[in-house]
Amino acid sequence: MSQDWKTTNKRTVLQNGKFLTVEYHTVELPDGTVIEDWSWVITPDFINVVIIDEDGRFVLFRQTKYGIEGDSLATVGGYIEDNEDPLAAAKREMLEETGYEAPNWISFGSFRVDANRGAGMAYAYLATGAKKVTEPDADDLEEQELVLLSRSEVETALFKGEFKVLPWTGLVALSLLHLDKNNARYS
Amino acid sequence: MSQDWKTTNKRTVLQNGKFLTVEYHTVELPDGTVIEDWSWVITPDFINVVIIDEDGRFVLFRQTKYGIEGDSLATVGGYIEDNEDPLAAAKREMLEETGYEAPNWISFGSFRVDANRGAGMAYAYLATGAKKVTEPDADDLEEQELVLLSRSEVETALFKGEFKVLPWTGLVALSLLHLDKNNARYS
Repeated sequence: MSQDWKTTNKRTVLQNGKFLTVEYHTVELPDGTVIEDWSWVITPDFINVVIIDEDGRFVLFRQTKYGIEGDSLATVGGYIEDNEDPLAAAKREMLEETGYEAPNWISFGSFRVDANRGAGMAYAYLATGAKKVTEPDADDLEEQELVLLSRSEVETALFKGEFKVLPWTGLVALSLLHLDKNNARYS
Repeated sequence: MSQDWKTTNKRTVLQNGKFLTVEYHTVELPDGTVIEDWSWVITPDFINVVIIDEDGRFVLFRQTKYGIEGDSLATVGGYIEDNEDPLAAAKREMLEETGYEAPNWISFGSFRVDANRGAGMAYAYLATGAKKVTEPDADDLEEQELVLLSRSEVETALFKGEFKVLPWTGLVALSLLHLDKNNARYS
């Protein structure tokens, strides 16, 4: 099986700084069908990090975001800057948002957000053995409060839907599954 | 903590049928700061389903999508129609795409795709005890091939990044974690 859709034209129909560009693509399918004005959404690639500290506690936020109702449990997250390595972005965002550093990093890979429309790539990391080295210095606009939870508290919150955003829920589930698979013991 | 951002104006700046609308919002922050032209992306809410059949095999696809390189393992997925119940959409898409029905359904909840920009809500389901009752009748444009995998094959593929799309990876991880937690035994 192969990707046989051909993009024969692209034009930008909307741009809002670095945060959002919309293109319309002309796409030709293998059977000759031509689709005009296929929306392609360009938003910055981003990272998320689940942090576990030296004592096995999960370092998370309770925060508000414009796109969700009420507050939510959240992971560290942020946009990758131009030409920045994704892992470097993850370490930078973790330090800025929490003041923590970690010696052990696991990458779960990168994932297309919208299989049809693009919408950036999500890079997912687990950092373990973390400890606080400085005060956080985040420039985020939203309120956020750092919280330390046990593994079982995180799992309970996950299945109660308390991580209300898809990349956060996906990464937390991957992290717990990874820890189980590797017989890591965090209370 | 509360969601204190106030939306004081909305205007539509792009619309492409039912698949994409972009609004610019004027947003007022708690400290009085006003952000003009905050991009808000409206795309259809969608469902994804991980299916396990009567013999404990995972019913998945290997498929191509415009937004990914090469092919990917994939779950059933599709847009929720106007006024359609999300679970009804999940059952409809499963039947159309695979020809399977299932007696047992677990909802993991609904998740905002982009905490800042919107981009729809993802509804995540696990269906177990499924069996084939008819031939698939999908109207999808892409090539897709149905594959049956064991639990361990799914976990291996997950951590190798073979589910290349965020909602698929997130749902598969949630499903495996749920099965482990509930001591379900699927080879």
